[in-house]
Amino acid sequence: MDYINLDYKPKKSELIAEYLVKPAPHVTIDFAVSQIAAESSIGTWTTIQTMKPRIAKELSPHVFSIKRKTNNRFLIRIAYPIALFEKGNAPQLLSALAGNIFGMKILKELRLEQFIFPKEYLKGFKGPLYGIQGVRAITKVKERPLLGTIVKPKVGLDPIEHAQVAGEAWAGGLDIVKDDENLTSMSFNDFKRRVKKTFEKRDMIENLTNEKKIYLPNVTAETFEMLRRVEYVKSLGGEYVMIDVLTAGFGALQTLRDNSNGLAIHAHRAMHAALTRNPGHGISMLALAQLLRLIGVDQLHIGTAIGKMQGPKKEVKTIFNEIELPAYVSNEMVQDWGNIKPVMAVCSGGLHPLLMPQLLKIFGKDAIFQFGGGCHGHPNGTRAGARALRQALDAALNNIPLKKAAEERPELRQAFEKWG
Amino acid sequence: MDYINLDYKPKKSELIAEYLVKPAPHVTIDFAVSQIAAESSIGTWTTIQTMKPRIAKELSPHVFSIKRKTNNRFLIRIAYPIALFEKGNAPQLLSALAGNIFGMKILKELRLEQFIFPKEYLKGFKGPLYGIQGVRAITKVKERPLLGTIVKPKVGLDPIEHAQVAGEAWAGGLDIVKDDENLTSMSFNDFKRRVKKTFEKRDMIENLTNEKKIYLPNVTAETFEMLRRVEYVKSLGGEYVMIDVLTAGFGALQTLRDNSNGLAIHAHRAMHAALTRNPGHGISMLALAQLLRLIGVDQLHIGTAIGKMQGPKKEVKTIFNEIELPAYVSNEMVQDWGNIKPVMAVCSGGLHPLLMPQLLKIFGKDAIFQFGGGCHGHPNGTRAGARALRQALDAALNNIPLKKAAEERPELRQAFEKWG
Repeated sequence: MDYINLDYKPKKSELIAEYLVKPAPHVTIDFAVSQIAAESSIGTWTTIQTMKPRIAKELSPHVFSIKRKTNNRFLIRIAYPIALFEKGNAPQLLSALAGNIFGMKILKELRLEQFIFPKEYLKGFKGPLYGIQGVRAITKVKERPLLGTIVKPKVGLDPIEHAQVAGEAWAGGLDIVKDDENLTSMSFNDFKRRVKKTFEKRDMIENLTNEKKIYLPNVTAETFEMLRRVEYVKSLGGEYVMIDVLTAGFGALQTLRDNSNGLAIHAHRAMHAALTRNPGHGISMLALAQLLRLIGVDQLHIGTAIGKMQGPKKEVKTIFNEIELPAYVSNEMVQDWGNIKPVMAVCSGGLHPLLMPQLLKIFGKDAIFQFGGGCHGHPNGTRAGARALRQALDAALNNIPLKKAAEERPELRQAFEKWG
Repeated sequence: MDYINLDYKPKKSELIAEYLVKPAPHVTIDFAVSQIAAESSIGTWTTIQTMKPRIAKELSPHVFSIKRKTNNRFLIRIAYPIALFEKGNAPQLLSALAGNIFGMKILKELRLEQFIFPKEYLKGFKGPLYGIQGVRAITKVKERPLLGTIVKPKVGLDPIEHAQVAGEAWAGGLDIVKDDENLTSMSFNDFKRRVKKTFEKRDMIENLTNEKKIYLPNVTAETFEMLRRVEYVKSLGGEYVMIDVLTAGFGALQTLRDNSNGLAIHAHRAMHAALTRNPGHGISMLALAQLLRLIGVDQLHIGTAIGKMQGPKKEVKTIFNEIELPAYVSNEMVQDWGNIKPVMAVCSGGLHPLLMPQLLKIFGKDAIFQFGGGCHGHPNGTRAGARALRQALDAALNNIPLKKAAEERPELRQAFEKWG
């Protein structure tokens, strides 16, 4: 069967997937894309006796666009009848459109670039419970980006030390303190003890500063254990949990979204770059971000466009727009998110105070800027690091050059000594 | 901090990870591996004031081996103190050892090749409930490989047609019938109706043939929905469920292992090749297979070494040995699996009857050979395809050339006409 029809106009009810395809040597692009369309829907590698005309008619996908790129790569688009997908089942979507096709010998490389979800498919999912507006309401910060830190070292502190570092960061002026992605419940730092001590500290600092302070405890674990941790956080008056969405996986994430008991979800993307980094093979961060908005995380790490982690600026901006806007046009295709709320973007990884003006310029105010080493690495420690960050943000918001602002602000001045 | 010590002898209690590293241009391998060791454990990109000497002493990993390979790649080994990992939390292991490090700018490429799990870490996990011996007991087949098929077309049949195709395959002589990876609960094929009809057919064919017949219903979904499907399968007298382990994810898989109510778990690996295919970047199938054995699937797709899917023979054999042997030496490192049972290997993808002698030669008897198109693509349909497969297996087990066996077996002869 040949699934190519370049005159085909996708129906509004169809789900579209865009792939970058590099056929194996001596394989035509036509054969390659037909096999991709088949393997991701109703077909297999050989003709079969059990195929019915009805199925071929009703469920065949259509390859409706093939664009030649450099390096023998082709950007292709396939429209899939919506019946090929179970409503509200994210793993099933991936098993179809990001499954066996990555391993086909007739391909040299394959990358899933993006989805366009039709309205009917969106309805199967909840999207974010809070989204950007909800996050603003919880944090009581309306007019500026949120500032956060990750307790460092990543692991090793005991619960009291952990709470202490968090308290210093809050006291210095940060809004959010987050566990690191590899810190769950350890022999030296039990989840319950850590969370209890850290919320005690939060309450204390909120009283001192009269500012709302947020703690993001990492609940990443087997699903039931994760939900027990959610309940514990809830019982202590937490507003949020964080989860490593890719290592916990989409099944567990959907369960968390359905059972978060009113807690907002902060999504860390540890492991994404194993999938997303190769420009020719794997799954783009854009496609993952679309799926995560659909399922419904409230905050999502999208990269920094600057700093220690890979991710070109244009790509990061595209992801930012896709998760924050009500509708987004990428490569002439429109994703209308309908009732699915926007997700607050999180920039994290290798950031320090001196990068604040750039961050503000790139991402604007609807973002969370997180500083790990860039806070605790301050020569005078965590509280001074947090102060330097607030000073840098205030200056950047008022268009005052940081160098100038630093003249009268010792913490920011010291940040220049370390990172300038 | 420098984490390299090539004289270091890893302790028996430590967890070892092996990576293939390609530093970015102008970055030394020493700097690259130290940053990998740091980011996957206690470190960050800059010096911090919150680090304690106790933590550096007790939790520092050691890079104890660096081997130069071609193309500016290095095979490195890192020994991690076991306290860095939460017992029994598979997502946490990945968040640490397969997390942020894939995105570091100082690396051009990074691939996680394998783990060595110490005894203490193994104890946190259950491993397979049944394993190879248990699968033999359930299926009542002791002396030969198991033969299976996937109902085709992948999706599109209604529950009655689905059961019909399954019945034909069982009647023709196959042991196992499996749902395809993208078939869950669809508008045209409801999970409950399909499973009910297919088990009715199974009971009928078991009575007719006096052979044990196995059905693997695909329960891949959000965790709670998955567990509801497990209970439904159990209530109808099923022995197995199948799950797409990577698209459902490790959190949900652990939950399934803990709550399978006595059902065996068949693991499909859809999406693995997005991670595993690039020889320089991502996560090897070997490492994924190790983690899946640890968590405890009973059957796992490992590739075919022949057929439509990519995967060189040597690599597939290594994975086979790692999941089936009580202990395995790969690259001079020994993984002793202790009480963790072996997993039955499944070969699936582009196989047909004429490949049977090769399959038997490569994998031996402790394997499941699955034929989708290679069964239903038979010119005379599914039952004839199943017969041809049993005929091919019987001939291969008795060292009779298939050509010769086909002389007196019309179904096998017809298979030659199509695939010869």
